[in-house]
Amino acid sequence: MHVVKKDVMVDIHAENDHVAEHVNGYLSEKGIFAVNLMGAPGAGKTTTLERLISRLPCKSYVIEGDIESDIDAARLRQQGIPAYQINTFGACHLDAPLLHNAVHNMALDGGGILFIENVGNLVCPAEFSIGEDIKMLLVSVTDGSDKPYKYPLAFEKADVILLNKIDLTPYLDFDEGFFMEGVRHLNPDVPVFQVCGMTGEGYDEAADWLRRRAGK
Amino acid sequence: MHVVKKDVMVDIHAENDHVAEHVNGYLSEKGIFAVNLMGAPGAGKTTTLERLISRLPCKSYVIEGDIESDIDAARLRQQGIPAYQINTFGACHLDAPLLHNAVHNMALDGGGILFIENVGNLVCPAEFSIGEDIKMLLVSVTDGSDKPYKYPLAFEKADVILLNKIDLTPYLDFDEGFFMEGVRHLNPDVPVFQVCGMTGEGYDEAADWLRRRAGK
Repeated sequence: MHVVKKDVMVDIHAENDHVAEHVNGYLSEKGIFAVNLMGAPGAGKTTTLERLISRLPCKSYVIEGDIESDIDAARLRQQGIPAYQINTFGACHLDAPLLHNAVHNMALDGGGILFIENVGNLVCPAEFSIGEDIKMLLVSVTDGSDKPYKYPLAFEKADVILLNKIDLTPYLDFDEGFFMEGVRHLNPDVPVFQVCGMTGEGYDEAADWLRRRAGK
Repeated sequence: MHVVKKDVMVDIHAENDHVAEHVNGYLSEKGIFAVNLMGAPGAGKTTTLERLISRLPCKSYVIEGDIESDIDAARLRQQGIPAYQINTFGACHLDAPLLHNAVHNMALDGGGILFIENVGNLVCPAEFSIGEDIKMLLVSVTDGSDKPYKYPLAFEKADVILLNKIDLTPYLDFDEGFFMEGVRHLNPDVPVFQVCGMTGEGYDEAADWLRRRAGK
């Protein structure tokens, strides 16, 4: 978060949480389970969505959050996945009012899972509820094993963690023990799935966990 | 940036720029050239500092910006590099008042180069001057070739770009042409150095460019 006067920040969070509850209520009424997908730039968020969606038995929708561009939304639409683009034009995270506008402008039939790909950022997205049922955190072994220690809030708030790009582990000095120690200190029971966006390895297990969690 | 009332943001930026000018003046008087090192989490910022500093003929100082932890500062100090830790405890970027406190509390003899490792974030650090002479942007091939299109401000404002982890290129689908097209559209003349933190490849050239740019 930016350093602004404390009362301003309190107002922002209170207003955001109020709208987030409304968004979650609207989606729940439609029987839609919402996933807030968070991760640093380049963690492999869009590839992860492709891998998960192709393995799910239910309908899926995607909201793409980017500062600029609609590269990811266009990529998903080419595969027949309904994708709605939000551009934040500078803002480093999605917030509930942006989601409110999006869900009311999308064609949401009801049922299924709505994936919301947050702006690539390991800091601020973890601070703002956007009406989701769960937060899914995607981290990559190429980013190093110290990430839980440096960006604790995202790890603390995650309902599930996917550790991506494990095919590159042989070429890195990634210390899995140190990484998992950091994760467990912040979030003792969070499920962690090792995946590889490039080959699809590990996504069967992650998609099955998600399907059961979403009750689909 | 967070979405707050416009007059609040204007106040924040104006106050920040005023303090940044003061910090830059203070460092200039001491003959210290300041580098604002920006990059996403896991881009390899601390390794890049080690690689550059070992190749420079002048004195170097480091300020480490992290949300929490002093892992990186401790690592640098073990190598005899003077490192001062700033913890932002939530804030997703450094700002000039934080730097003001740091430079006035550090033992800065004068001369040399001060490296300021910003918080791992490809968004907000680019918005805030912190008294630097140049902004150095570090990006990793593992993050994908679409980064200039998705995070344009950091690329637009960079005075020099280091493209890291090029040893992993054979195992990735990184499209260098697409990446460079995005860079050149935003920043036609910025020097781009390909480097490998793990092996040290490419850092001779980058350090030499920096030495000349800093007049050391």
